[in-house]
Amino acid sequence: MILVLNKGLGESEIAEVVSEIERLGFAAQSVLGQANPIVFVTGDVKTVPSHLFSQITGVEKLLKVGPSCPRVESVANAPIKIANGVTLGYGAKPIVIAGPCSVESQEMLLETATCVKVSGAKMLRGGAYKPRTSPYDFRGLGKLALQYMAQARIQTGLPVVSEVMSIEQLEIACEYVDMLQIGARNMYNYELLSAVGKCKLPVLLKRAMSATISDLLQAAEYIMLGGNEKVILCERGIRTFETYTRNTLDLSAVAALKSLTNLPVIVDPSHGTGRKDLIRSMSRAAIAAGADGLIIEVHRQPAKAMSDANQAITPDELTKIVSDVEKIAGLFADDALFSKPCQLSPV
Amino acid sequence: MILVLNKGLGESEIAEVVSEIERLGFAAQSVLGQANPIVFVTGDVKTVPSHLFSQITGVEKLLKVGPSCPRVESVANAPIKIANGVTLGYGAKPIVIAGPCSVESQEMLLETATCVKVSGAKMLRGGAYKPRTSPYDFRGLGKLALQYMAQARIQTGLPVVSEVMSIEQLEIACEYVDMLQIGARNMYNYELLSAVGKCKLPVLLKRAMSATISDLLQAAEYIMLGGNEKVILCERGIRTFETYTRNTLDLSAVAALKSLTNLPVIVDPSHGTGRKDLIRSMSRAAIAAGADGLIIEVHRQPAKAMSDANQAITPDELTKIVSDVEKIAGLFADDALFSKPCQLSPV
Amino acid sequence: MILVLNKGLGESEIAEVVSEIERLGFAAQSVLGQANPIVFVTGDVKTVPSHLFSQITGVEKLLKVGPSCPRVESVANAPIKIANGVTLGYGAKPIVIAGPCSVESQEMLLETATCVKVSGAKMLRGGAYKPRTSPYDFRGLGKLALQYMAQARIQTGLPVVSEVMSIEQLEIACEYVDMLQIGARNMYNYELLSAVGKCKLPVLLKRAMSATISDLLQAAEYIMLGGNEKVILCERGIRTFETYTRNTLDLSAVAALKSLTNLPVIVDPSHGTGRKDLIRSMSRAAIAAGADGLIIEVHRQPAKAMSDANQAITPDELTKIVSDVEKIAGLFADDALFSKPCQLSPV
Amino acid sequence: MILVLNKGLGESEIAEVVSEIERLGFAAQSVLGQANPIVFVTGDVKTVPSHLFSQITGVEKLLKVGPSCPRVESVANAPIKIANGVTLGYGAKPIVIAGPCSVESQEMLLETATCVKVSGAKMLRGGAYKPRTSPYDFRGLGKLALQYMAQARIQTGLPVVSEVMSIEQLEIACEYVDMLQIGARNMYNYELLSAVGKCKLPVLLKRAMSATISDLLQAAEYIMLGGNEKVILCERGIRTFETYTRNTLDLSAVAALKSLTNLPVIVDPSHGTGRKDLIRSMSRAAIAAGADGLIIEVHRQPAKAMSDANQAITPDELTKIVSDVEKIAGLFADDALFSKPCQLSPV
Repeated sequence: MILVLNKGLGESEIAEVVSEIERLGFAAQSVLGQANPIVFVTGDVKTVPSHLFSQITGVEKLLKVGPSCPRVESVANAPIKIANGVTLGYGAKPIVIAGPCSVESQEMLLETATCVKVSGAKMLRGGAYKPRTSPYDFRGLGKLALQYMAQARIQTGLPVVSEVMSIEQLEIACEYVDMLQIGARNMYNYELLSAVGKCKLPVLLKRAMSATISDLLQAAEYIMLGGNEKVILCERGIRTFETYTRNTLDLSAVAALKSLTNLPVIVDPSHGTGRKDLIRSMSRAAIAAGADGLIIEVHRQPAKAMSDANQAITPDELTKIVSDVEKIAGLFADDALFSKPCQLSPV
Repeated sequence: MILVLNKGLGESEIAEVVSEIERLGFAAQSVLGQANPIVFVTGDVKTVPSHLFSQITGVEKLLKVGPSCPRVESVANAPIKIANGVTLGYGAKPIVIAGPCSVESQEMLLETATCVKVSGAKMLRGGAYKPRTSPYDFRGLGKLALQYMAQARIQTGLPVVSEVMSIEQLEIACEYVDMLQIGARNMYNYELLSAVGKCKLPVLLKRAMSATISDLLQAAEYIMLGGNEKVILCERGIRTFETYTRNTLDLSAVAALKSLTNLPVIVDPSHGTGRKDLIRSMSRAAIAAGADGLIIEVHRQPAKAMSDANQAITPDELTKIVSDVEKIAGLFADDALFSKPCQLSPV
Repeated sequence: MILVLNKGLGESEIAEVVSEIERLGFAAQSVLGQANPIVFVTGDVKTVPSHLFSQITGVEKLLKVGPSCPRVESVANAPIKIANGVTLGYGAKPIVIAGPCSVESQEMLLETATCVKVSGAKMLRGGAYKPRTSPYDFRGLGKLALQYMAQARIQTGLPVVSEVMSIEQLEIACEYVDMLQIGARNMYNYELLSAVGKCKLPVLLKRAMSATISDLLQAAEYIMLGGNEKVILCERGIRTFETYTRNTLDLSAVAALKSLTNLPVIVDPSHGTGRKDLIRSMSRAAIAAGADGLIIEVHRQPAKAMSDANQAITPDELTKIVSDVEKIAGLFADDALFSKPCQLSPV
Repeated sequence: MILVLNKGLGESEIAEVVSEIERLGFAAQSVLGQANPIVFVTGDVKTVPSHLFSQITGVEKLLKVGPSCPRVESVANAPIKIANGVTLGYGAKPIVIAGPCSVESQEMLLETATCVKVSGAKMLRGGAYKPRTSPYDFRGLGKLALQYMAQARIQTGLPVVSEVMSIEQLEIACEYVDMLQIGARNMYNYELLSAVGKCKLPVLLKRAMSATISDLLQAAEYIMLGGNEKVILCERGIRTFETYTRNTLDLSAVAALKSLTNLPVIVDPSHGTGRKDLIRSMSRAAIAAGADGLIIEVHRQPAKAMSDANQAITPDELTKIVSDVEKIAGLFADDALFSKPCQLSPV
């Protein structure tokens, strides 16, 4: 960390700043900058609240340092076990998670789950609690949908994942699902992150529409700080000026995340593009970029879906994508593109 | 609403679509477009889930219609009463809400509250539960801070506002504060919005970093749908590519919101710019743009604040801003710049 | 096109609008909307200046129609011939274009060109005129650099491409290069676009940092309108709030462009990410997304490059990327992911 | 400037780096960082090409330093004289520049010019060469429009400003106008910037849709480097995800620019919002933020304008805005909100 001191500070005052830092347990070295004296702080400052430094007399400001994510940065290099033999991440083959945006009925879900199974996808997704921009749109069947998900798991053997938006929903969902999802709209909901941090289930954490890579890693750190190390990061598009796509899928974030942490990284091309015609090509690209998996919305009759109809694909299209994924993953199976985590901030 | 039908649909099939719409209780009129037949739906479609239309056989897609915010768009043209004679919104003079980012101690809060009172500001803000990007930064004193806020209210007569991030915190805060704040990070937290919708207290709703004007209005609709009509909208900057400022303060959103709803609109120049040197000029600009008030972070020693030190101003600077606000508001007091709500979608 | 008429217009006035449209040579059909009467205009309105419609008495506004790019949308489905047997686009294998950001010296260029040739890349890039954000940074060797490029072409047989920023530079460059490049900063420079439209050489047109997909297509239309049909589109990242990467590479734009036009689409992962550690993974992803080629900055000693040192890769890394491209392209060679151009605006 | 050296460098190697910097004419001081050795370079590095430092053996990278705009940052604190007694900037009263987006005919321009004069605005704007996104839209009357502008100046006494997009147009325009305009689309057109830098006329430089504050200042430096110190900066909205407005008007940029340079700063609320209903409130806000002037599109029949019809206001509305500007400017006339330029980069 670099502290910029007040201009014109004398030698004894600078020495006092250095002493104060040493009292906090860190090493410090001062240097005269162009305009203001500078103090370098060395040692493990990552988990120290920054105001302890900024409040030292003589300190004008702290220079930007990288985010503080020691748990995220040092997590072990191993895949995460979900359930029924499905694993995600380092060393495991990329997998496809698929299912309807919303669980619309029991019959619809079970039929879709069978298609998902047949396609070669390895997990089932399905919305029970739906965060909708308009309060008048369909908001999901709630607990009933979770029960249908549990039935679909029994029927197909596919582990299931579903989104929760509150602590109350979290408690219900834990009884039915194999993986919890925190949606993009709740990535900054730190109370919810802390709550899933105390769960035993793996957590699929989606990047918020306005989240930097650093914000996403820090949200994962909230979860891991609670004791839950099974976090799967998900790139699902960020909000930009482009309107042709619903969001702008940031695939360079996949490669960046893979170099910053050993946590698995998957991609959601459905929300990432919002257009069914782009999902197959973006699925290919995501796997080629190094993603550990995909999460895709599928519907028997996409145009008739009760939510996100524009971005659902058919079971046939899903089958082709699963095949694409296998082909691309096969090309680079023994290729260490991302050898070890580097740091967000080298200085 | 405009429905685009499948290309090549015959007359009888189009008639069937029209009949189906009429069965749903709406009027419909068909027309042959360049490529696809079109059906116009008229009547109050605002609160009807859109999938009811998209699921009709023959319908290819719905053309974008405006957001569905009937409560937000039709709310009465009257100021909102907060407490102790303070009102916000249409017809009331613009007010300044000020206080520390975080409540750091009892002594600090009471002293700051006195400064806020003396400056001419009309409400006190103070953070008890702090949403911090890093889990290692100071996260607030919690309930204790709320108790100090209540003391400060007794001491100064200023109504108080504080942020809540969960339903649990909401229940505690309701005992101590006069206005609840939903922060930018929780604007998409629909469970929390629904919960404050059932409270009696006014709610200060901040625009999320990635929220369009339409998203913000729909978040307000969630609250109003619960029965709470006392919603104050707050522009606090959106996330853009510009890095000189922490966010990009979107003052045209103030004028836009004032023309779309009668709900009060205030501006947060502290988070909007993230720079103490820009807060006074942006405060002036916000009031000139038509804002009903400001919410500003103030600290006795800004550089030593435990959170957001770069954007806190001194009590002296606050006094100047309150004076600026009065001067500008005085210029245009009898000037109906925003006469009545218009609609997001004219068609 | 949809015209929204003034509210309350009578039948005879609406009929007058329809007549006026018919006098302009188009068919029109009126319908009563929810609030305002509507007129649908059918026929080929793509190249008609929109003010001819907006100026008709009774017309309140035009509803958004798609961009007007008839040449871009109808260009033939065939690869573009560059030189020396190199072709780009539909049906041709994806190629890699590589070379230094700036031509720094004759010796450096010739040595780099040999590396590029050996790697299996098919074209040589090299900056002669450099658009630099700061006027004090190295701005290129100009005409001398173009002469070195011509020598490198003779030595290696690789066709060469270089950027021009003005009509004066364009005239010089045409003597030395096989393909002209319009950089991101000049994509909106319509005078320059019109000028290259009158050249015979193929034009590599880069997307501006703030350009929508529609803006890019319309810029290509400017070139094609001048008579030059050999336009290659290039995605090179857009400006967003993310700062970890220099830009946000928008690979969904590749798939979108491929479905909107038959013009070749290539990707620049160097500027797209600004980070040498992300270029290989983004190269893979771009080809998997359907790109017809890549343009990559390579330098013998990346850290010592006179411009864009952070994003140059070594010749070794380039060789690996060329191999990756061949592998991925081989997987999907006979797979018609993008069968035919669709339209930006179906209505 | 801060140089980050290679990890593990020995003392003698570090000393060699320091010597090399001293040979370049700068002072240097080394310090051992957390991971890499660091060297601080002091002295006037602003106009030194950065590759001179990055090419020193042992240097891994340069840490971000502020933009290099010595001319922009040190320009004198005095208003710029335009013509006919009109001045812009420090110490002068804010002025309004108004006129049609495009000059449509002689009669139309002269009539509009009279309205502009009567409103109290001080300069006339009018488009002769129009940069249009679609090549099929009206692109202006060219030289003829400039001649009409010159006539309007004689008739009204108002100095005139018009946009140029190429060096050829520049040469023509210099005969007719009092101020040249570089539009947002050409802010990165460095050849054009250098060309207007050799002109004697004042230059109105608009911020590009994707330009940071730093990019804009560096574009101004290009002009000043040519010898022309009469640069007026113009905020006109940046491109963000918000679609309700055409662009997002960044008024905090006005205050930021005023603190970074003494160059005058004006605001274009017409392009900044793209909506006639928001122009008056944004005009007020811009002046309250400290802008030295406004540039506004006015049309006798806004809905019938040949370009940008949605954002033109009527002469009546213009008169109200001129009055607003005078009122707000009067409030703060003797108030030194922006006392002296500060620096983009304090270290």
